[in-house]
Amino acid sequence: MTIRYPNGKKYVPVNQTTTKKTANISFSNRGKTLEDELNDSNEYYLSNNIAVIHKKPVPIQIVNVKYPARSAAVITEAYFRSPSTTDYNGVWKGLYIDFEAKETTSKTSFPLQNIHEHQVKHMKQVIEQDGLAFFIIKFTTIDRYFILFYEYFEKKWERMIAGGRKSITLAEMEEMSIEMQASFQPRLDYLAALENHLQSLL
Amino acid sequence: MTIRYPNGKKYVPVNQTTTKKTANISFSNRGKTLEDELNDSNEYYLSNNIAVIHKKPVPIQIVNVKYPARSAAVITEAYFRSPSTTDYNGVWKGLYIDFEAKETTSKTSFPLQNIHEHQVKHMKQVIEQDGLAFFIIKFTTIDRYFILFYEYFEKKWERMIAGGRKSITLAEMEEMSIEMQASFQPRLDYLAALENHLQSLL
Repeated sequence: MTIRYPNGKKYVPVNQTTTKKTANISFSNRGKTLEDELNDSNEYYLSNNIAVIHKKPVPIQIVNVKYPARSAAVITEAYFRSPSTTDYNGVWKGLYIDFEAKETTSKTSFPLQNIHEHQVKHMKQVIEQDGLAFFIIKFTTIDRYFILFYEYFEKKWERMIAGGRKSITLAEMEEMSIEMQASFQPRLDYLAALENHLQSLL
Repeated sequence: MTIRYPNGKKYVPVNQTTTKKTANISFSNRGKTLEDELNDSNEYYLSNNIAVIHKKPVPIQIVNVKYPARSAAVITEAYFRSPSTTDYNGVWKGLYIDFEAKETTSKTSFPLQNIHEHQVKHMKQVIEQDGLAFFIIKFTTIDRYFILFYEYFEKKWERMIAGGRKSITLAEMEEMSIEMQASFQPRLDYLAALENHLQSLL
């Protein structure tokens, strides 16, 4: 039943308007990086007891630290180290989840040159321990998102090693991976996309 | 059959002597920190395809980075952040593994003050997703190692919250946890200790 004020205007609870406004603002926020979108999604999963998935800290080689009196230690010299694993991991319904997130501005293919060999090796090791390893890939220019399982990725990686093309074409991506849409809450529901896919395999 | 040289001395293959020597050196290395021992064990697990478990990088808040010409980026100002999760996680035979490693010099109890509340919260969330969460605790002075499952730890944590003692006594530790011995390869076979325990529950 719609409640109406004596002036004929429809009654809208305050919370509802607020929520809707926020929703519009967030949803139109196309400038977010994939990392931000995934951090938002992981926070949503965590606070709703859906999964425990975190981004790992950036690995740093610390060379010098100063300890000023009465204040926090300051790192005054440090260097970035290349990661030996993927960026994200955690647990979802008893499953070990491990993935790497990558963006590309290309409209036609996903370049393989910014994937590190030790990350590929890591994902292979995860698969061998019955974990779930995959890539989340965003084509930023055409605003499309894909989940690519390591098992499919590996074929294209090996094609490159064998001297073949150094990228995965969009057409190949469409064929091999799960496409997902950005939404409001969570921003990128990659676990729902995974679940649909896993159930379709049963 | 033992091969003997004409002089009556027993033949010992060169490799065997070498291996034995190395073993003795490593085994007597009691000065290692628990972190070193666990990193060695995790490397052993990884190279023998037993499990994929890594220590997470220390979380750092980066404030300033310089980019000198023709050399690597230098972080010139950064601060340590307190970790929001545990230090170690990974996958073993399809199981999600998550633990925190702590040393104490006390001979009689394990103090709870250097456990962060958000780490406890994180472990609780892991349990709810059917992951395995535990502490590996080393009493350095008496050289004893314990695996304490989160479920048991929680009772003592709650006792502290309720105003009770701020530590777990050694007697309580002996009763609630799995004790393990340091060895050669891997240095700390915590997965074997877990496996024995999990099988004893069946």
